[in-house]
Parts: sequence; C-alpha cells; structure tokens
Amino acid sequence: MTTRVLTGITTSGTPHLGNYAGAIRPSIQASQLPDVDAFYFMADYHALIKCDDPQRVARSRLEIAATWLAAGLDPEKVTFYRQSDIPEIPELCWMLNCVTGKGLMNRAHAYKAAVDQNTAKGAEPDDGVSMGLFSYPVLMAADILMFNAHKVPVGRDQIQHLEMARDIAQRFNHLYGQGSDFFVLPEVQIAEEVATLPGLDGRKMSKSYDNTIPLFEGGAKATRAAVMRIVTDSRQPGEPKDAEGSHLFTLYRAFATPEESAAFRQALEDGLGWGDAKNQLFERIEQELGAMRERYAELIADPARIEDILQAGAEKARRSATPLMQRLREAVGIRSLSLQVSAKTPASSGKASGKTARFVSFRDESGFRFRFLAADGQQLFLSNAFGNPREGGDAQKRLLAGVVDVRPEGQDTLQLLLDGQPIAVIDAANWPLIQDALADLRAQQG
Amino acid sequence: MTTRVLTGITTSGTPHLGNYAGAIRPSIQASQLPDVDAFYFMADYHALIKCDDPQRVARSRLEIAATWLAAGLDPEKVTFYRQSDIPEIPELCWMLNCVTGKGLMNRAHAYKAAVDQNTAKGAEPDDGVSMGLFSYPVLMAADILMFNAHKVPVGRDQIQHLEMARDIAQRFNHLYGQGSDFFVLPEVQIAEEVATLPGLDGRKMSKSYDNTIPLFEGGAKATRAAVMRIVTDSRQPGEPKDAEGSHLFTLYRAFATPEESAAFRQALEDGLGWGDAKNQLFERIEQELGAMRERYAELIADPARIEDILQAGAEKARRSATPLMQRLREAVGIRSLSLQVSAKTPASSGKASGKTARFVSFRDESGFRFRFLAADGQQLFLSNAFGNPREGGDAQKRLLAGVVDVRPEGQDTLQLLLDGQPIAVIDAANWPLIQDALADLRAQQG
Repeated sequence: MTTRVLTGITTSGTPHLGNYAGAIRPSIQASQLPDVDAFYFMADYHALIKCDDPQRVARSRLEIAATWLAAGLDPEKVTFYRQSDIPEIPELCWMLNCVTGKGLMNRAHAYKAAVDQNTAKGAEPDDGVSMGLFSYPVLMAADILMFNAHKVPVGRDQIQHLEMARDIAQRFNHLYGQGSDFFVLPEVQIAEEVATLPGLDGRKMSKSYDNTIPLFEGGAKATRAAVMRIVTDSRQPGEPKDAEGSHLFTLYRAFATPEESAAFRQALEDGLGWGDAKNQLFERIEQELGAMRERYAELIADPARIEDILQAGAEKARRSATPLMQRLREAVGIRSLSLQVSAKTPASSGKASGKTARFVSFRDESGFRFRFLAADGQQLFLSNAFGNPREGGDAQKRLLAGVVDVRPEGQDTLQLLLDGQPIAVIDAANWPLIQDALADLRAQQG
Repeated sequence: MTTRVLTGITTSGTPHLGNYAGAIRPSIQASQLPDVDAFYFMADYHALIKCDDPQRVARSRLEIAATWLAAGLDPEKVTFYRQSDIPEIPELCWMLNCVTGKGLMNRAHAYKAAVDQNTAKGAEPDDGVSMGLFSYPVLMAADILMFNAHKVPVGRDQIQHLEMARDIAQRFNHLYGQGSDFFVLPEVQIAEEVATLPGLDGRKMSKSYDNTIPLFEGGAKATRAAVMRIVTDSRQPGEPKDAEGSHLFTLYRAFATPEESAAFRQALEDGLGWGDAKNQLFERIEQELGAMRERYAELIADPARIEDILQAGAEKARRSATPLMQRLREAVGIRSLSLQVSAKTPASSGKASGKTARFVSFRDESGFRFRFLAADGQQLFLSNAFGNPREGGDAQKRLLAGVVDVRPEGQDTLQLLLDGQPIAVIDAANWPLIQDALADLRAQQG
C-alpha cells in the first residue's frame, strides 16, 4: 500500500548548508522510496505569522523553491506546491475552527511558551500574540487533513501539533461522518537523528549564531570563502591533527563516503595542513553541490519557470483537494443548491426514474472485477481484478461504508482509493459523479 | 458619492413575519435609495459556528435566499451572494489573523459572555467555546474589508465587532500600506428603532418563544392559522376594544397605511369582534405578501435557479474581491513569482526597455481629461472629465498615493475609484495591468 507523506517547508530565510544536509537531502532521498506518495508544500501562509516583511517572504519563497528543485526534488514524481495556491486550505481551516475547542489551542506548547515569557517579564499574558500564532495548529491541521496524509515527518517540537490534527480530524469525523470518515488520522514520523552540521565555530550551524556556510546563494565563491573561515586549532602543517575533535572533519564526513572519510582522517592525523584540509573539504562539497548550483542559478534567474512548476503542482494537489472539499461542503450543509436537490429527488433530476446506481460483477482473464454504473447505466468505473468474488463483493460493501478517496494517477485519471487501497483507475471527470452515486446509494440504504 | 453598504444575513432558521417586518423589508427599501451600492451576503461560514446540523444549514440557505428574492431584493441592482462562494474571504481571514492581536479577541463581548456563563456554573472558562466562536470577529472583518464597505447596518450588539474590523483594517494598512491604504475603515450604521413585531402572545416575536407567525413556509394557510391563534382579551363582538393595548392592532399597523390603521382602530373601538379583526389582519398581511408568496413558491421549487442567481452574484462580488486580493497578496509577499520579477526588472519582462507607464493630459469638449498609458504605450484607461487642469493633475498624484479600487459597472467594465470617488470606467481586463503599472510608478518614485 502506498503511504502518503506530507512535508511542509516554511518560507522564511535562505537555506544554508546545514539545512541541506539535515533536512533537504534526507527528505528528498525519502521521497524516492518505493510506495511513497510524497507531498511537499511551501508554507507561505505560515510565514505571514512571523514575518511582516513582504520582500523577505517573497525572496524566501523563490529561493526555497529553487533550492529544493535544484537539490533533486522531482516535481513529476512528487506533488510540490505552495500552500497559498490551494484555496481549499484556508476554507478547510475555517471549517476546522468550528469543530476545534479553544481549550485545545490554549494548551499548545508554542502559545504557552509565549504566555510564560510575557508573564516572566510582567507583560500581559497575550502581549504580542497574534491570532495567527494562536490558531496556527488549526491551519497546520488543514494542511495535513486536506490531503489525507498518512505520515508527517516532523521534529519533536511538532509532535503535539500532530496530535492536535488527529484530535480535530476525529472530532470532524465524529460530528459529520455518519459512518464514513472524511479524514485519515495522520501519524507522526519522527525525523531520525539527522546529522546536525556544525557551523564555522563548531556550534550547531544556525542563522541565529551567524556561523552558517551558504548553500547556493553567492555561488561557489561564497561557499569557499565560508569554508576558509572554519575555526581550527593552531597546529601547523606537518603536526598530527585530532580529526575526531575537529568540526571540519565532521563537515567532511557529512558529504563523503566512509572510505573517503577514513582517508581524510588519516591524512589529518598524518599532519595535513588546515589550509589544504579546507581546500579538500570545499572540493568534496562542490563535488556534490556543483551540478545543483548550476541548476539553482538557472532556476533563480527564471522565476516564471518555477511559477509554472508550482502551478502544475497546485493543479495536481487540487485534484485531491477539490473533490474532498466538495464532500466536506456537502457534509456540513453548504453544498450547491442545484446538487442539493438532485440528491433529494433523484427522479426529478434527469436520472432514469426509479433506477439507481449499481454494481455489476463479472470475471475476466485477470480475475474478478465489477463495474459501477450510474442510474442511467453509464459506466462510472471498472474495478481492478480481485483474487476471488468475495473480495470483490466486500469492496462493494465497503465503498458504501469506508473511506473512499482519490489521488492523482495520470494526466486526466485518478486512483480510486478504498480505505487507502487503490481499487480502480478512474477518469478524473467521473469522480464527482461517483461520489454522487455513492451518496445516493448510501441514502437509500438508510 | 456612492456609498457601499454591506449586510450579512445569517443562514440559520426560517424567516418569520417578525424578521420580514423588522429586517428584510426595511433593508430592501434601503437598497433602493439613490447613491447606495448595496451588498447582501448569506453568511453560511458563520452558520457553521453554531449549527452542526447540515440539513438545517442547507435548508436555511435555500429558504433565506428565496425569501429575500421573493421580498423584492433585485439581484440586478444589488450584489447578492453567498459567503462560501468567495474563496478570497477565508484567505483574507487568515491574512487578518496574522495582524490581529489575540488580546483583541479576548475582549469580544460574545466571548466574554460565554466565559462568564461558564465561570458562574463552575465549568472551565473556555468550556464549549470553539475556535470558530472565538475568531468570529476576524471572519466578520474579512467579510466587510474584502469589499471595502463604507457602512454596515448592524444591531447594537454588533457595534464592538465593527470597531474590531476598523482596528484590524488600520493595523493592516499601517503594516503593509506604505502610504496607500488597502482598506476603507467601515462605519457602523445603527438600525433605527425598527418595528419589533409582537408574537402570538404579545411578547417579541421570536422562535425561542415559539410565538411566531410564519412568513412563507406552509403557505397562506399556515399564516392564517397562526393569525387565528393570536391571543386577545375576552371581550365579545359589539363590546368596545382597547386597540392601543392590543398586539393584534400593533401587527395590523405594521402592514397598513396610517389611514387604514386609523379606520381599523376605530372599528375595534366601535366593537369589531376579534374573529373579524383577525380576518381583516390576515387579509391586510396577504395584500402585501400574496404576490411575494407566489414568487417564493416558484423559487423554492427551483433551487437551481436560485443557485444561478447566487453564482451570478458571486461573480459580480469577485470582480471587486479578486483584484483586491491580488493587491493584498503582493503587499504581504505572496504574489506570483512571474509577476514578482516583472515588477523588479521591468526591462527584462517584455516591457519597452527604459520606458514606464505615464499620464497624458489633454482637453476635449467635456473638460480636462487624461489617459493612463502602459510602458508599451497601450492605453489603460481614459479618465472622466475634470473641471480644470489642476484637478486632473491632482488625481494623477493621488493615483500614486491614495486608495485605488474598483467596483462593478457593466458586463465587462469596472468603475475605477480613487479614494472612493469614480474617476474612470475601465475594461475589467485592464485592472491588473493598471495595478501593475501603478505599482511600477510607485516603486520608481519611492
């Protein structure tokens, strides 16, 4: 079974070498695993919570998109989009607001920390706390639930927010689900202890310590200049160096094979000068980054191309979001009035009177299949083959009771998922009809 | 100058005779005043805060739309739409969240009342308070600011929310405006003491007292049956009645001319029987409602037609919302990457290198006008005539510094508003180009 994994990328700041080795590289590698349906989005609505500098937000969106694409994120394989291109997300955020207790948000660690800080300095508890900061976990829940992600890789500080997303999903399912759940409960995926790169001074590489090595910005020249400023001890060329104790070695190891690392270590212990060592480190980094750097330069010079990629990604993402939002609107009572009536009085709405949608089972050379026909006899989809007729019949029952969803398949086709398992490839245009037909059948059954 | 007046209608429940006389009828009359650009919207996102019964929400949306249309709201003259058809509204709600202090929401009367109730009964302060209820004033601000309404008619209980909308607008203008304001500060318009109709038992007509007279639901039969149940004293036919002391007379007066009312009063004082009086009241009500009732029945039987009207209304409303949202996205830094660059490096983006947009003033038989030309010389708009050249020049300056907005004019045309005053009729398709050209000029100057 395919697992949908969703990763949010905050669009504030410019990625540095530490971000690359600690987050971007492992995340892109993970997207290439089999059976992973990876979603990556740039969280630009989230960026507005903390950053009211429009130039910085705009620049960061461009740099981050170019960085991930240059680093090998394949927009054909994954779904790569921008939060602000999915109008269903703020809409879902409002729907979730209406089922989320304020008490839940009161308990969020980030909010509580802000209150504690204010209290400690004698300020009003909510001083400087915006509604954006306070309701941030609801928007995060919308980001995740909109695409029914199974797994969300997060740092330990985000575990509580994931739990909140599960709570909110459960509450919505309970209030509006009536037997068929709208939302998958997302599972947290704790990022394994990734290599936290040391910065120039040996502390964790971080913008707040001003000790970062640039990734792509400023070109190879800037990266080299930073590498040359790595702090070392004062041993001279010829003197043996303590490789394990040197963060220069730690940096080298983050980019080299075990064999290369062993050789570098030996060379340091044999007296390699720090200047030469820095040159070798820079060369090794460039071996990995060189080609990416060229792609980055091309991309950053052509924002319209990045925009096209993101628009295509948004379209792909909305192939899941739009039909789910249709179901949610129906569930809460804000469906189109035209649809509303056709569901209530099927006979008057052009459907063959008295007839309803139905399943027709049959067998062919690949196994046991069924067709799902609309009331007027039109074929809505043909199922994949099942090993035996019982499995096919079971799938028909669960279509009426379980979680039915879709995810993009080809240009105009979707995978129809039943409780997360693909059971048919359908025409994208048929998905609303399939949902209507299933809703009619469910209503008939009671 | 035209005043934009925005009225929200909550979609919960079925309108009764008291809603008609107290809110619907006066509001529709107000929309027919000259120089009023009236916006009416059905607040269905708001309905989700209090109502988790999808059938009730759906039914109420249908009934309320049919009621207002049947009662004479002219969708050709006003802009009549549904909140949930304007995706810009929840998006703006999020943007406003990010500039709204949580402290402001803590002070909202409705929230404080809920906390007081909880405290009084020994429950947790936030017991039963959803994030929807807590952040409701932010959504209401988005409803109003999205269309830059000048006036919002509200009851006294909503004055505080209007003040919050002004606070939020000011904060956004201050943070992102840089001299040109995005939002008009809305003014409250306190509904005059409207006739609050008494119900069957003489108390205020209200669903919670179960004393309502149906408006359209159930047909004339249901209205008549309710009128017949109006509580009166036990005086017999022939005995003089106390007209002023009878709520039956109050009801009559709400539908009759002063002359009719005087005659009815005289008849009661002369001994008209209550049964006959009820018949006369019913007849008088029907004189006003009869034709509306027919239109209501037609509309309610044809939800697809209502849907069409609402879709047309949404399209009209979005002719203001979409361009404003484009400006807001640009302001906060989440503009399209393609546009971003064209603004930064005009020469490389197909614009005639070195040239910029410009004003060209001239005089014709109607007065002093100017053209606004794009960098490539294309005419973006032709101004209305001004009385003297100074006024025209002043308008050009203010185009770069003041509030520039649009509102629907014809099929494909918009009124270009400068600080709320119309200064030109433009092609709708030119509005984004005009905004870009103005932004370029502003950037050059600043």
